[in-house]
Amino acid sequence: MKQLFSGKTKDVYELSDGNYLLEFKDDVTGKDGVFDPGANTVGLTIEGAGAAGLRLTQLFFEKLKEKNIPTHYIDANPEEATMTVVPATVFGQGLEVICRYRAVGSFLRRYGKYVEEGQSLDAFVEVTLKDDERQDPPISEDALDMLGILTKEEYSILKERTKGISLVVKEELAKKDVELYDIKLEFGRDKNNQIILIDEISGGNMRAYKDGKYIEPLDLEKLIVL
Amino acid sequence: MKQLFSGKTKDVYELSDGNYLLEFKDDVTGKDGVFDPGANTVGLTIEGAGAAGLRLTQLFFEKLKEKNIPTHYIDANPEEATMTVVPATVFGQGLEVICRYRAVGSFLRRYGKYVEEGQSLDAFVEVTLKDDERQDPPISEDALDMLGILTKEEYSILKERTKGISLVVKEELAKKDVELYDIKLEFGRDKNNQIILIDEISGGNMRAYKDGKYIEPLDLEKLIVL
Repeated sequence: MKQLFSGKTKDVYELSDGNYLLEFKDDVTGKDGVFDPGANTVGLTIEGAGAAGLRLTQLFFEKLKEKNIPTHYIDANPEEATMTVVPATVFGQGLEVICRYRAVGSFLRRYGKYVEEGQSLDAFVEVTLKDDERQDPPISEDALDMLGILTKEEYSILKERTKGISLVVKEELAKKDVELYDIKLEFGRDKNNQIILIDEISGGNMRAYKDGKYIEPLDLEKLIVL
Repeated sequence: MKQLFSGKTKDVYELSDGNYLLEFKDDVTGKDGVFDPGANTVGLTIEGAGAAGLRLTQLFFEKLKEKNIPTHYIDANPEEATMTVVPATVFGQGLEVICRYRAVGSFLRRYGKYVEEGQSLDAFVEVTLKDDERQDPPISEDALDMLGILTKEEYSILKERTKGISLVVKEELAKKDVELYDIKLEFGRDKNNQIILIDEISGGNMRAYKDGKYIEPLDLEKLIVL
């Protein structure tokens, strides 16, 4: 099994059948030992964090499969913290697509002149470049098109799909009285050039609150996965 | 004559007929004594800078008038460094609309992973919030709409008008073999809710180059205004 990539929170291997194996690590992003899903650095290592992230990911990807929303997911093995996926190429050098239901995080830091902290946002979608050096800058539809990263047609698909997937997650959390504030997704193109959801959907990709209190990723897993 | 506002580079007065008088100051934006049209602080004071800015502004606004592009301009008095305009209200708490022909400045700082310095851009339009505290963050069409700053229809008008106005400036500069790299415009709504170009168009609003060399605002005025 050939290792293709070692990421901040995951390692990627190529399987003999051409599919990929993702191994979830116990590292979570954050700064100064405090978990922050928006951070670009690995802040701390928590035993079992990888397996917990995978259990949530598995739950959400299975839900998406039921709804025929295309993703890279094939199957998962929570005991080994691994997930099998179809290969996909990212847009440009990687994008993050964010769906926001409440104003927190970088949205609030940018637009605090116009919004209150925690204010409702109507499933607002925005795209940022994965670029640690430049603090993951937000990028517009026009700029994505001009720079050859994403066509306008692809942007439109991405936006609608992001809203659809985020709603699935939001509704799943709502069953446990947990409110989704925002979520960060990644997409890629499969071998047929179809746009599919890639990466994971776990506590580290979202901000979830219960009774107005932020839920840590590992606690979210315990709350949501029975 | 009642003073309504004192800005970084201009003072605004209300005239008895309801129109506004803009007085151009000799202060230009920059940092540490170096002129930077993208800066939020007044970096230095140059005698005659106000009158020079106004002469360029007058030239461009007269051109736009000839082409029936709606602006706030009525007339100008370069000797007194004043310009008479119709009143307008800004969008939200103020926006800047940027048209880019080459990748420099904040565009390069954000998207340097995808563009080379000075790379051609196809009259790329983007909007930033006027918010010194938050370093004038870029904002998307969707966010402007969601935050009630600009409707989608208004965004579309703004974008097309920005391209049209920028082209007028670009062609005017080209007559003197000067190349426009980027330009920053401001728009507002007049009393009939029409979108009009406001503020000024001078060296401080654009980056202009001759033979690959940046031209300082005051030198630009000397080059362009006969």
